[in-house]
Amino acid sequence: MRIEQASRAQLETWRDELRAQYSAYQQRKLALDLTRGKPSAEQLALSDALDGILQGNYALDNTDLRNYGGLEGLNPARKLGAEILGLDPAEVIAGGNSSLTMMYQAMQYAWMLGPDGKNAWRHESGVKFLCPSPGYDRHFAICEQLGIEMITVRLTDNGPDMDQVESLVRADQGIKGMWCVPKYGNPTGCVYSTETVDRIAALGKIAAPNFRVFWDNAYVVHDLVDNAPALANIMERCRAHGTENSVLQFTSTSKITHAGAGVAFMGASKENLAVFCKQLGIATIGPDKVNQARHLKMLPDVAAVKAHMQKHAAVLKPRFDCVLQHLREAFADSDLGEWTEPAGGYFVSFNTRPGLAATVVKLAADAGVKLTPAGATFPYGKDPENRNIRLAPSFPKLEEVDLCMAIFTTCVKLASVEQALAS
Amino acid sequence: MRIEQASRAQLETWRDELRAQYSAYQQRKLALDLTRGKPSAEQLALSDALDGILQGNYALDNTDLRNYGGLEGLNPARKLGAEILGLDPAEVIAGGNSSLTMMYQAMQYAWMLGPDGKNAWRHESGVKFLCPSPGYDRHFAICEQLGIEMITVRLTDNGPDMDQVESLVRADQGIKGMWCVPKYGNPTGCVYSTETVDRIAALGKIAAPNFRVFWDNAYVVHDLVDNAPALANIMERCRAHGTENSVLQFTSTSKITHAGAGVAFMGASKENLAVFCKQLGIATIGPDKVNQARHLKMLPDVAAVKAHMQKHAAVLKPRFDCVLQHLREAFADSDLGEWTEPAGGYFVSFNTRPGLAATVVKLAADAGVKLTPAGATFPYGKDPENRNIRLAPSFPKLEEVDLCMAIFTTCVKLASVEQALAS
Repeated sequence: MRIEQASRAQLETWRDELRAQYSAYQQRKLALDLTRGKPSAEQLALSDALDGILQGNYALDNTDLRNYGGLEGLNPARKLGAEILGLDPAEVIAGGNSSLTMMYQAMQYAWMLGPDGKNAWRHESGVKFLCPSPGYDRHFAICEQLGIEMITVRLTDNGPDMDQVESLVRADQGIKGMWCVPKYGNPTGCVYSTETVDRIAALGKIAAPNFRVFWDNAYVVHDLVDNAPALANIMERCRAHGTENSVLQFTSTSKITHAGAGVAFMGASKENLAVFCKQLGIATIGPDKVNQARHLKMLPDVAAVKAHMQKHAAVLKPRFDCVLQHLREAFADSDLGEWTEPAGGYFVSFNTRPGLAATVVKLAADAGVKLTPAGATFPYGKDPENRNIRLAPSFPKLEEVDLCMAIFTTCVKLASVEQALAS
Repeated sequence: MRIEQASRAQLETWRDELRAQYSAYQQRKLALDLTRGKPSAEQLALSDALDGILQGNYALDNTDLRNYGGLEGLNPARKLGAEILGLDPAEVIAGGNSSLTMMYQAMQYAWMLGPDGKNAWRHESGVKFLCPSPGYDRHFAICEQLGIEMITVRLTDNGPDMDQVESLVRADQGIKGMWCVPKYGNPTGCVYSTETVDRIAALGKIAAPNFRVFWDNAYVVHDLVDNAPALANIMERCRAHGTENSVLQFTSTSKITHAGAGVAFMGASKENLAVFCKQLGIATIGPDKVNQARHLKMLPDVAAVKAHMQKHAAVLKPRFDCVLQHLREAFADSDLGEWTEPAGGYFVSFNTRPGLAATVVKLAADAGVKLTPAGATFPYGKDPENRNIRLAPSFPKLEEVDLCMAIFTTCVKLASVEQALAS
């Protein structure tokens, strides 16, 4: 289907056919949901051994796991986080069940007291953050809550457009950081190229001293294919540039074990961690060490994590294949949209023809398929071209994904044809 | 031993005897610790059934416990918290492993955005907090981090000196709240009288609209005796005064089950909770529901909690009795100090003669007994009379408590006698 070459008569024929298909879907009164970037029950069950795994042994690393204390997390947990992130254990702390919470805390402390404990963002005017987009709405919500102005940066297949990033950072010392999901980013699934990682590591040389990249490596081990693309080690690049303090890293076991009951990690230079922990110690006496120990028993090292992730891939891959097959069949030979084919992560990103994302989301909703709201993947919920839609196939059953996608592709076609007829 | 009536000769005799005793302790090269307000291994073991208690059943209240979501906590967990705090379940949220974290968040949101979501403390000058003292150093640390000026309020046996509190609040709308540990307060163990609770509930009528009492009911079920003193229900008193929004309540299972791996609760008016949860939802996707379910399985209701607390009391009571026996034997018929005899909680508070707390702590340290730093129980770590010492007997073994107290009483006597001789 090629809209731009189609005659009006052809468009009208398509419209009538598509409206008929759409009505048929509507009559089925479906209630499907393709919004949620969360694991399915089948994936969660892979970690059901966790509860009870300690078999009454609440001691580890010379620590009574049950008592207060241990702000930085258990040493073996820090070691596991370090293996996952490619850091030294002294550069990692292990926390509670949410890396989002750690990111929020790091942002809040930086705003309140400074990421270096000295230069608080709140004492400066015009504080801004770079937001490669489409990106993760919860990152943007933190900036919005703290009143930090967000600047949308173009996201390429290799990561943020670094020419744009460098020129912005050079021009404005009010830019205090950048959100990054470097591997299988939400929602495009892109993996930052080695050159991009190196140029991000080098930003510390031109940015303000209280500039910090927030490196949310949520999908670091979440490969769907065997020969998964490698992500360069940003801390190694930082060491080469002498910018070790310019990056804060985050990850968690949320999409490895139980999404709501996992262990989060933060990685950073020892200097950055010392500043963070000084503040953290005011807000908590320490993380749940019992739960950290459960995780260590099930996943003692990164090799065990990777083996475990293959089981996830076996559950997820058919869902992604289903999404991509629908997209290819419907749009491969068309001018109706473009999409990403990620090698890992949780999302497929689809771009409609300009101006149609909100219409497609509305059409899908009216046919019983809930999609992530149009615009959600951009700062302030505003997609400048109104094109991007995030597809999240992990949670529904495979046959539901299949039906969702049949309806989705119909909605995209219908919206495109009707737009063309109206123009 | 009565210092004030003693002759110089008598004082010198005492000094020589006490120095000899003290030297003997020093020669034993002890390493004892009476600082830590944390449960002993014996107490923690009472909850060792927690891990594995779900027996593979990760569903509760129509929720997959393992997945993301449920910002306010599981409904049965909210109900349990409500029973403990004497609230409606809709007035309680169940969180992660730390009520300190919830207090920190509530303070931070109030400072940043306002406890009502409108009137942020940070936009006003001269923001102050009332701190009944001696009190809990971690409360004070939060104020200090946020740059909130602390005003020390006298703590009587019935709670804060309400004449002082009311006159301060009437005179200054910059006062934005007050820290309270209403039952078995840290460190005095006092229980607020019904009149005090009522007058605190009434503060909302004279205070600024963004004034909030932080009601840290950490020891709400932590009785050591059978006929424990009752604490009036502050929310009932608030309803009577029409001040439901003026109090935020907190508690946790930290000293009920496993100190580092429990469940925290926040109780407040539905309006206050809605404001809190709106901000909380930016910082997390939800608490660890699996761990909440473990707790519900072991402690399904407040009756089960109370039965469980009797087992704690059986472990704790001998330690408290030991402390009190030493104090009575050494000081009952003296002018060397006064102390509290709490019916619950985790601490005994001792006041030396004016100006001696730091000296006693130093003497004890040099004889191998670590005590909570003098001043720690007051804002900014400064005890205006340098008298208060917090004794925490829960963690050491009973024979260690016994030895600690023998050394402590010797140190108090020696410091008192030397002070009298020097004056």
